[in-house]
Amino acid sequence: MATPEKLSTESYKGVRDFYPEDQALLSYLTATMRDTVKRFGYAEYHASVLEPAELYRGKTSDEIVNEQTYTFTDRGGREVTLRPEMTPTVARMVAAKKRELAFPLRWYSIPNVFRYERPQRGRLREHWQLNVDLFGVKEVHAEVEMMTVASELMRAFGARENDFVIRINNRRALNRLFGEYNLSPEDEKKLRRLIDQKDKIKDFDDKARELLGRPLVFSDEEDPEVSQIRQELSALGIDNTVFDPTLVRGFDYYTGIVFEVFDTDPQNNRSLFGGGRYDNLLELFGHDSVPAVGFGMGDVTIRDFLEVRGLLPAYTPPARVAIVTAADSTIPYALTLAKDLRSQGVACTVNLSDKKLADQLKNAGKQNIPYALFVGDKEIASGSFVVRDLASGSEKELSREQLHSFFLNLG
Amino acid sequence: MATPEKLSTESYKGVRDFYPEDQALLSYLTATMRDTVKRFGYAEYHASVLEPAELYRGKTSDEIVNEQTYTFTDRGGREVTLRPEMTPTVARMVAAKKRELAFPLRWYSIPNVFRYERPQRGRLREHWQLNVDLFGVKEVHAEVEMMTVASELMRAFGARENDFVIRINNRRALNRLFGEYNLSPEDEKKLRRLIDQKDKIKDFDDKARELLGRPLVFSDEEDPEVSQIRQELSALGIDNTVFDPTLVRGFDYYTGIVFEVFDTDPQNNRSLFGGGRYDNLLELFGHDSVPAVGFGMGDVTIRDFLEVRGLLPAYTPPARVAIVTAADSTIPYALTLAKDLRSQGVACTVNLSDKKLADQLKNAGKQNIPYALFVGDKEIASGSFVVRDLASGSEKELSREQLHSFFLNLG
Repeated sequence: MATPEKLSTESYKGVRDFYPEDQALLSYLTATMRDTVKRFGYAEYHASVLEPAELYRGKTSDEIVNEQTYTFTDRGGREVTLRPEMTPTVARMVAAKKRELAFPLRWYSIPNVFRYERPQRGRLREHWQLNVDLFGVKEVHAEVEMMTVASELMRAFGARENDFVIRINNRRALNRLFGEYNLSPEDEKKLRRLIDQKDKIKDFDDKARELLGRPLVFSDEEDPEVSQIRQELSALGIDNTVFDPTLVRGFDYYTGIVFEVFDTDPQNNRSLFGGGRYDNLLELFGHDSVPAVGFGMGDVTIRDFLEVRGLLPAYTPPARVAIVTAADSTIPYALTLAKDLRSQGVACTVNLSDKKLADQLKNAGKQNIPYALFVGDKEIASGSFVVRDLASGSEKELSREQLHSFFLNLG
Repeated sequence: MATPEKLSTESYKGVRDFYPEDQALLSYLTATMRDTVKRFGYAEYHASVLEPAELYRGKTSDEIVNEQTYTFTDRGGREVTLRPEMTPTVARMVAAKKRELAFPLRWYSIPNVFRYERPQRGRLREHWQLNVDLFGVKEVHAEVEMMTVASELMRAFGARENDFVIRINNRRALNRLFGEYNLSPEDEKKLRRLIDQKDKIKDFDDKARELLGRPLVFSDEEDPEVSQIRQELSALGIDNTVFDPTLVRGFDYYTGIVFEVFDTDPQNNRSLFGGGRYDNLLELFGHDSVPAVGFGMGDVTIRDFLEVRGLLPAYTPPARVAIVTAADSTIPYALTLAKDLRSQGVACTVNLSDKKLADQLKNAGKQNIPYALFVGDKEIASGSFVVRDLASGSEKELSREQLHSFFLNLG
């Protein structure tokens, strides 16, 4: 089977391999997301990462996104895109069954999304993203619910109220402002993108003046919808919100309120995630407009946030105990013991090879399994087993009947 | 935002949209898989669906698989493949960190995999597949553990012992048989594929004779490794196993024992899933060989099996109760009530729009939410709430304090 040239063990550029410890973190993130949004009655949906390329040719996605998609032609001549974001997909799915679905619709998904980033920027080409969407509510109560979910997510991850702030703006107010400058639709888009990137651009004021012919001045007056939302959130105990007249969000499809959850750390003051209202997206599928509000939360940004604050959980291996064997002849007994423990809910591994006891223990320790249980002829005969705590080295002798409650009670 | 041509709401050909009821089934399948394999101490890993195309050019995959891959060139000129199976990926990941990893290694993953099937066959181009692999054990105890996991999976899904059988063979025995016919390596592969498809080919005997020049006769003598495995399984209470000298499995990389779990329904006697030993795969990455046994279980086949037997669970929506409101003025109170219920673990939705009470109830029923809770001025004043069972129509009056225990106790 050997070939002259050996295969590379590297993954494709810009994507990640998730070894068990990495995957455990991703699972922690997604489990926390699921638990939180389900409490609000959101149901999970999903779709393939492959979508017809046409889906992104309309106005469903921002052009910047379109320029960065993975698009290819399949063997049947169809143009296929690896989804760069989930909103066009969820709009497509809702449009497809609009008559059968019961509105309001509360849906979430945790898809992987792809962007073809230039390699030198060191950014990832694939990440995982929680998408939460509420269809069918035109009232700003919908925005209030979205931001409540966003806030609860942060709290579920262990963030305190002063670790983050929700910045809120209204695209309609922004559009009114743009109107005052008499911009062409193209220059409006340029300006929107410029504002979206303002924290990353040093000479933002100069660039804006260049585009407008005069300095850009944001209105300080709080938008009435933003005020109402902030009041309703406050009544629910969520006071870490601000009106931010400069908030814009990248996507072109937003039609009203937009919001972003920001890290308040002065060293790392940046957007963690956000969303907004997009009432017109279903029109692209030939439907009447359906009010919609949603947001997306990426795994990489939130993981960084939690890591900096020491909020990520330690790795716990699936097995609670490694059953180690003195000889090949004791393996059959060890297997029946493992069967019993598993049926009582204790996850365990059994040694299956001719490794020395010391090596078996070393391996169990390397995998962070907390306990080892010895099975030798003496133990089988006496029915009394030595359980070793692999971190402290302390040992305990237990009867076969005591084993499962020992491992479960220490849960 | 309207465009003249409307976008299609169809998904890409051969892939599925998972609406909440579909996704709930997939989640049930994957949750059952996770629970089962974790009890055996298997740790979850994951990788991107994108892999360098080279990975499948070696001998990691069967050529038939290679002919059916989605492969394209990215903007940087790199050839990329959407993984058609997970084994080459897991071999790559293990090879990449071979020195750091503690063997034996028990790993699982539930990736999506892609195959470019011809559309007319109506087969899916993407499915989800549990992959379970054990690296570092050369003894047949490894095969015993794999088949125990396979059997436990079936039992966890509700299948009884006589609903399925585990067919076992040894590739080495098959190779000895092939040796007797003096076949070229190419004809060997042809024959292996022919045998793998024998249940689907009507004139199998004729075709085999054509290739061999004389009739194909399988040995009836049970392979000694197969015997040992069947005995060890029997000691663990797993007796639904048979030696099947005609079992081959599609992939070229198997080196020893192969096994398949078969549906015993005479109407639907087919392979549900399977696997085997592949000891040489890591050599392709320039490493010494590492003993490995694994199997894969696809979501579509197992779902069909469970559906036919009535073993699929009914859909349960995430929300236990829909809080319905008499007027917009009672929404703020409903929101604080929802907040309390959620903090006590009761998932609920709140009406957020100006819909009539009857419409709110209709929508909750359409989404299968079991209960509705009314919030009107009278209820707010009295602190006493009417809870309606939406299936039976029966009602109950409860104080605010009684609510969460009512919803939780009925779990």
